[in-house]
Amino acid sequence: MPDRPAVPSVTSRRDFLRKGATAAVALPAVASLAACADTRAAAPAAVQAPAQAPPPPQPSARDKADAMDAMHEKGIKAFPAKTEGKGNQLLEPKLEKGVKVYELTAEEIDWEVEPGRKVRAWAYNRQVPGPQIRVREGDRVRVKLTNQLSQSTSIHFHGLELPNDQDGVPFLTQPPVKPGESFTYEFTVPNAGSHMYHSHHNAAIQVGNGLLGPFIVEPRRPLPAHRADVDYVMVLNDGAHGYTLNGKGFPATEPVVCSRGQTVRLRFMNEGMMIHPMHLHGMHMTVIAKDGWDQPAPWKCDTLNVAPGERWDVLVRATNPGTWAFHCHILPHAESEHGMYGMVTALVVQPAAV
Amino acid sequence: MPDRPAVPSVTSRRDFLRKGATAAVALPAVASLAACADTRAAAPAAVQAPAQAPPPPQPSARDKADAMDAMHEKGIKAFPAKTEGKGNQLLEPKLEKGVKVYELTAEEIDWEVEPGRKVRAWAYNRQVPGPQIRVREGDRVRVKLTNQLSQSTSIHFHGLELPNDQDGVPFLTQPPVKPGESFTYEFTVPNAGSHMYHSHHNAAIQVGNGLLGPFIVEPRRPLPAHRADVDYVMVLNDGAHGYTLNGKGFPATEPVVCSRGQTVRLRFMNEGMMIHPMHLHGMHMTVIAKDGWDQPAPWKCDTLNVAPGERWDVLVRATNPGTWAFHCHILPHAESEHGMYGMVTALVVQPAAV
Amino acid sequence: MPDRPAVPSVTSRRDFLRKGATAAVALPAVASLAACADTRAAAPAAVQAPAQAPPPPQPSARDKADAMDAMHEKGIKAFPAKTEGKGNQLLEPKLEKGVKVYELTAEEIDWEVEPGRKVRAWAYNRQVPGPQIRVREGDRVRVKLTNQLSQSTSIHFHGLELPNDQDGVPFLTQPPVKPGESFTYEFTVPNAGSHMYHSHHNAAIQVGNGLLGPFIVEPRRPLPAHRADVDYVMVLNDGAHGYTLNGKGFPATEPVVCSRGQTVRLRFMNEGMMIHPMHLHGMHMTVIAKDGWDQPAPWKCDTLNVAPGERWDVLVRATNPGTWAFHCHILPHAESEHGMYGMVTALVVQPAAV
Repeated sequence: MPDRPAVPSVTSRRDFLRKGATAAVALPAVASLAACADTRAAAPAAVQAPAQAPPPPQPSARDKADAMDAMHEKGIKAFPAKTEGKGNQLLEPKLEKGVKVYELTAEEIDWEVEPGRKVRAWAYNRQVPGPQIRVREGDRVRVKLTNQLSQSTSIHFHGLELPNDQDGVPFLTQPPVKPGESFTYEFTVPNAGSHMYHSHHNAAIQVGNGLLGPFIVEPRRPLPAHRADVDYVMVLNDGAHGYTLNGKGFPATEPVVCSRGQTVRLRFMNEGMMIHPMHLHGMHMTVIAKDGWDQPAPWKCDTLNVAPGERWDVLVRATNPGTWAFHCHILPHAESEHGMYGMVTALVVQPAAV
Repeated sequence: MPDRPAVPSVTSRRDFLRKGATAAVALPAVASLAACADTRAAAPAAVQAPAQAPPPPQPSARDKADAMDAMHEKGIKAFPAKTEGKGNQLLEPKLEKGVKVYELTAEEIDWEVEPGRKVRAWAYNRQVPGPQIRVREGDRVRVKLTNQLSQSTSIHFHGLELPNDQDGVPFLTQPPVKPGESFTYEFTVPNAGSHMYHSHHNAAIQVGNGLLGPFIVEPRRPLPAHRADVDYVMVLNDGAHGYTLNGKGFPATEPVVCSRGQTVRLRFMNEGMMIHPMHLHGMHMTVIAKDGWDQPAPWKCDTLNVAPGERWDVLVRATNPGTWAFHCHILPHAESEHGMYGMVTALVVQPAAV
Repeated sequence: MPDRPAVPSVTSRRDFLRKGATAAVALPAVASLAACADTRAAAPAAVQAPAQAPPPPQPSARDKADAMDAMHEKGIKAFPAKTEGKGNQLLEPKLEKGVKVYELTAEEIDWEVEPGRKVRAWAYNRQVPGPQIRVREGDRVRVKLTNQLSQSTSIHFHGLELPNDQDGVPFLTQPPVKPGESFTYEFTVPNAGSHMYHSHHNAAIQVGNGLLGPFIVEPRRPLPAHRADVDYVMVLNDGAHGYTLNGKGFPATEPVVCSRGQTVRLRFMNEGMMIHPMHLHGMHMTVIAKDGWDQPAPWKCDTLNVAPGERWDVLVRATNPGTWAFHCHILPHAESEHGMYGMVTALVVQPAAV
């Protein structure tokens, strides 16, 4: 396959993504992987055989096929495409007398889902998903919500077993937070795991428009078996912005990048209205936790059905080098006649560092 | 939060629900829960901060927000709202020579789903869901079905491993039961668990209209680990009557009520056409059985995906006092701009009795 | 039930199916099963009671009910109905120097989904699903794809952990295979289990139209606990051809046939765009594997939710004789007012051979 671009000199995930953020980086070409010994069997080069079947009846059929293929190629070559704005960025707290303080402002913004496609979004801190909060079991946390929207709102910490008055359900546990007002939540983080925060007021609309984010709680005593080199949160959505992973549609989605031999922890979270069975090519996923609770025994799969409100944590042993398609297997959420779009990204397993 | 009503003097689930059936009982106010020591950490009162952000540009925005909030408040304040008719009521059998005899009449009725919204329903014994049958493994059971509908019908005992001629599939295992006729099923109950009975003739219509009910089989030797203080069957539906829990939409749904320290067993059953990932706030659920069969090891979650035809049994340790939202997390099944509706109820954990 | 046909003299699954392929074979009548001792309890004959309820007001209601019932009866009596074409047929490889060689030709054909309903299908080797490939862990396999379609295509081996350049994703791991051209995949089979092969180019359309098939990998060391007498692959689909099991809609679906006392292994695969909770009557299923990976502990159910891209392997101990309905429990996928259709088949447990 000599028509493939050479492998970019990518040495780390950070490096890869930095380049990805400034230019459309060519994907690591599979050609380069021929040099990598396969642990199971030698892989022969794929053979492009000469045409043995009769040509299609009309010459225009081939032209149409070429035109469709060009659209597909364009999407894949553009990946990871640069767009304005990035959600799910780690939010550093301010420390006030031992309390981790987070400030979240809900406001309406423009959000670029794919190159050139801008939508109106309701966002926390101008990000979709909102910034990632990552704390430790037992931490004291204060979250100050400021409402710059035209509707009242609230925050529910989905999965955290908080005292009732911190649960964020207007009229049941607190008054709604009116436009222009603020509300402060404060609690000691009770249970570890992959959780979420989102609006619980007019939520079908407000969450669908982007008022959601990941709330990760590291356990006080992490299990050695759960140690990972890369820890990646993937928020699925299918609301007002279309089919998205972390607020972006392919080719603007972010690849998950690791080196061969590393372990990747993926934290799937569904903030949408449909199930999304996420399929990873090339390697299996070992499921270790559901909604932040360890499964009694890990189990393996390559397609994991993630329902709205669910969180699933999996580990991937990156044994198989290459750039691997990674997408929702409800195919209309991932591909059209114009090429891949929506809930598609890639797991990039780079050759091990030397 | 001084605008909250005082806690009603509710001392038991029965008492709570009896009051709930005669008047719109105010929910236990969260204010009262401040007096309850929290086992994990002291919970500070939520702080309603003075407005620090600039007011929204147009005064009418606030008016619109207030109007929306008023609709939301009205729904929650009405919960649990009184409606005519109650489904899933325990049906006491007649005993005939050691056989438990149940009579079920299928007929068309008016059914009040929410206050003032009446629909046509096809019901067993004028209930949606039909009356709850609760027997013991090994019991001899006779079920006499009388068909007062304008269509033929039948009953399939979904989950019971019956002899083939008791399986209720017209033309495959029995003739259809014609309008005006009766059919008697009789069997020895073979397997324990949370099962269902429903029509298996023109079923997409007949079950969608209400011909369904729970069939609970207590095991001969219950596991001590499954002992529960409250045993609650929750039938999910999304057919002709909209999104319902036990035949009612919020705010006419029934809260699940327990005291702090108790264990609640929930038996989810989906008789609809869509998945419903049920999300409990404030506490996790420990999944113990699927379709009536014990899981090899219990596992925990806060959002449980229940597919059509499935039954899932979970235990909840009621450690966290308060009134907790409990709803399908496909948000359009639970909330609109007019407030919560459909598949929403609450788990009410009352302060432990003194 | 004297109106039932006598049991056909069926002595084996092969015999049953051969007859089924040439004529509409009557189902084993339940009447005959009365002779079979039940292991749990004696089953009384169902009693058709005389009408005790008043007759329905208008005579025409009964006529309408009879007319509807006649449509339902017609469908069940026609099962298994003869149609042209059969998918999922075992494909024998050519052996070339120790390599198992399979040839797959993608082309557009007419496909009879139900008696008289023909659709355009995109098929491998003129079958929907494509022919079943069944190999052993560690086998060397060559698959030559010839594209006779008017669009480019490719094959992704869904679930196999192949070297990247054999993964079948155009522009990511290989060029698209143009109309009239061929492409050869070759690999050593890395992991056992129930896998699939399908197009990964314009896949929402191409897979929806039929470019899919099962790829079964027998383990090198099969677990004795997984031994089965019947091994049946059931591919679910809901694309351009409607709701199908192995490419056919009821009554043209194929029954799964076994003898009492046998063990049946079912391999569910969802190649569609919706979940399908498959419900078996009369016996439970023991789930042993997900996506080809053994579950850490087997678990039981009677309704198994199969999401797009997932494969689930279950064992059924055929303890309960009779012809058992077996269908998707999203009822509109299985029944209309005109009778059963779509995703419905039967598990036929014949009396044990003497």
